Amino acid sequence: MERCRMVFSGSGGQGIITAAVIFAEAAVLYENLNAVQSQAYGPAARGGSTRSDIIISDSDINFPKVIQPNVLICLTQEAYNTFYPIIRPGGLLVTDTRFVKTEKKVDAQQRELPMYQSIMDKIGKPIVFNICMLGAVISFTEIVKSESIMKTLASRIPSSFLDMNQKALNLGMELAAAQKM
Amino acid sequence: MERCRMVFSGSGGQGIITAAVIFAEAAVLYENLNAVQSQAYGPAARGGSTRSDIIISDSDINFPKVIQPNVLICLTQEAYNTFYPIIRPGGLLVTDTRFVKTEKKVDAQQRELPMYQSIMDKIGKPIVFNICMLGAVISFTEIVKSESIMKTLASRIPSSFLDMNQKALNLGMELAAAQKM
Repeated sequence: MERCRMVFSGSGGQGIITAAVIFAEAAVLYENLNAVQSQAYGPAARGGSTRSDIIISDSDINFPKVIQPNVLICLTQEAYNTFYPIIRPGGLLVTDTRFVKTEKKVDAQQRELPMYQSIMDKIGKPIVFNICMLGAVISFTEIVKSESIMKTLASRIPSSFLDMNQKALNLGMELAAAQKM
Repeated sequence: MERCRMVFSGSGGQGIITAAVIFAEAAVLYENLNAVQSQAYGPAARGGSTRSDIIISDSDINFPKVIQPNVLICLTQEAYNTFYPIIRPGGLLVTDTRFVKTEKKVDAQQRELPMYQSIMDKIGKPIVFNICMLGAVISFTEIVKSESIMKTLASRIPSSFLDMNQKALNLGMELAAAQKM
């Protein structure tokens, strides 16, 4: 497989880091891949953007930082404004329609998904916004199966919350599928 | 300050990664420091040891991986057997007495703390074992104040769980304080 370098970005409280950890664990535990997942915090983290890096590969990964992501997710305007220049040419840029107005030219496929709006309309709980985002990511990248995400979630959250998370994951997959080429 | 390089290791489900994320966030948001936090997963992660790296500094951090930790925490025998050789000479090695029998010679201070046992005796909930471990870490390293950990926790968990987490944090701090030089 081609090495997949991803950056999830947004603001604190959106569950960006949790989503990245779940994605990386699912890839390793259930897809037999290697993963490195990291966050770098600095002055920007104080009230600024959260950024979480994930590299997935079927071979060893030496350098854990993502310089140019194939897949860049931006869940706030500030994250978009900060990170859009780093997208790898020909990569995929996914934004949330509620939080991001895309106005920059990038050499990448752009997908604007109404993830937050759909979560609020269909589930009503912003806490699973990050899982909806993961649904979109797994639909676009096809690296990790939805069952693998759900197995990873099952080991981390109370079983009474699994159903809501499954719905959020499905919602993200459907939103992405509607915009796939 | 001297740059602090830490590795938390143990098995999946012990909350190693969560503890590392909380520590890094607390350092950045409330102590005005920089932090990089990462996990590398590979074949070892499949039923093996979990390892989470944290670097804390008051200056920029370029390379996010820890080669030789100043502080190495091992919460399982397998993690100890795997990682004890990487401790930085003169560093600090902390193990849990319930899970680790220390039998290797290392050029480091060794502290064996009954963290798991104390959590089970005093609180009865293994879920806060990782917070007890964080208490020991902040007591030994004095990089992050307990109030900063609690503020970080307050933004992540339901308020009804804060009291139990505060107790676990205090317990870890007391266990460490009893063994400080």
